Amino acid sequence: MSAGKHLTKGSAKPALPDDGVPRLYSMRFCPFAHRAHLVLNAKKVPHHSIYINLTEKPEWLVDVSPLLKVPALQLVAEKSKPSLIESLIISEYLDEQHPQPALLPKEPLQRALDKILVERFNAVPGAFMKILSNDVGTDELWTAVDIFEAELAHRTTPYFSGSQPGYVDYMLWPWFERFPVLEYYLKERYSFDKQRFAKISAWIELMLKDPVVQSHFVTPEQHIEYWRTRKAGQTNYDLLA
Amino acid sequence: MSAGKHLTKGSAKPALPDDGVPRLYSMRFCPFAHRAHLVLNAKKVPHHSIYINLTEKPEWLVDVSPLLKVPALQLVAEKSKPSLIESLIISEYLDEQHPQPALLPKEPLQRALDKILVERFNAVPGAFMKILSNDVGTDELWTAVDIFEAELAHRTTPYFSGSQPGYVDYMLWPWFERFPVLEYYLKERYSFDKQRFAKISAWIELMLKDPVVQSHFVTPEQHIEYWRTRKAGQTNYDLLA
Repeated sequence: MSAGKHLTKGSAKPALPDDGVPRLYSMRFCPFAHRAHLVLNAKKVPHHSIYINLTEKPEWLVDVSPLLKVPALQLVAEKSKPSLIESLIISEYLDEQHPQPALLPKEPLQRALDKILVERFNAVPGAFMKILSNDVGTDELWTAVDIFEAELAHRTTPYFSGSQPGYVDYMLWPWFERFPVLEYYLKERYSFDKQRFAKISAWIELMLKDPVVQSHFVTPEQHIEYWRTRKAGQTNYDLLA
Repeated sequence: MSAGKHLTKGSAKPALPDDGVPRLYSMRFCPFAHRAHLVLNAKKVPHHSIYINLTEKPEWLVDVSPLLKVPALQLVAEKSKPSLIESLIISEYLDEQHPQPALLPKEPLQRALDKILVERFNAVPGAFMKILSNDVGTDELWTAVDIFEAELAHRTTPYFSGSQPGYVDYMLWPWFERFPVLEYYLKERYSFDKQRFAKISAWIELMLKDPVVQSHFVTPEQHIEYWRTRKAGQTNYDLLA
């Protein structure tokens, strides 16, 4: 939960107490790692956050995340088990291992439908990166978001997961928190339509007030500054440290 | 479980009894749909298989699979619920809804590790398609398979899931069943090394004898013929019908 410095090539492996507490290898501005932080914080699971410079990765990262990926959750109490990777697998594991508060529904069909919804959300990260890499417009992004506007209308609840945020809400949130970055780059070509996305707009307002979202929040200005330095080829990972 | 004809553009929606039995929209040679068939058969879940011509899709497919994907599992007993898509989500749903025989472990950490293993397997379908599309060699494929040879050695069981085939085994199997297609196209450049892959070789032999694998088996000659017609631009979907 700290906003620690990102460890880099040549840096020593962090000295952590032998306390059996899981270690999340993360990067402070990575939306996929963001998912794991939200679930850990929603469940109040004690953990150490270890931030990694993804441009110049520390040599020892391979020992704790053999594919050099973040997020990676090292369960130090489980001797000789590899770290967990993949944000959705980590999140589902945490939901099973730490049942309260429940984030995924227990009923198999609704579980499957929630997972399919999160799978369909992949179009949003895809469109997001296209805008930031190729300077294309927002058409593809808004078409992808339409699905979620319709789904909120269909579910008739303030959150995707019901009257409280749950799995779907936290898996989607990291990209919505970063929408101001798109507005910064696209300027007047950024056209978030509050009528077309009336339900999503209300959901964003609610999510911004959620204590779990607030527990790992990065302001629009900070997200923009991260992307400005990244696009300039000099990523400032440590701007919150 | 039938080897029915693939329905195509212009074909009428199949007339099926109002029996509440789930309907699997599939394609007989699709390895992802293959996964869903294996899980349905492992659990002896009664179902109708409806095969779809993926080159000329029937107009009504959108009603049962809005993204026009197969596999899609329509749970007709669940009124007004959309079909399930994504082979892994369908398989996990079936495992939760029909607990016997259990395919995924119940213990959260082992579940997560099995899912990560299946996620890592994505490199195999990737390499497989590269070989068939670009006529590249097998280096990338064998490097991907190394992970699974090592994992079988590490687990010290004949199957990935233990003494019986389970989730990992059935999720991986469809591509191994299709390896003879690679051999057919690469000829002497195909170099499956039975020493390098000693454990995988033994696993393949066991899987070939598994009644569930046999329940949806396509012979090497048939897989090759499917690919020959597909590469010629005249896919013969119905060669088993």
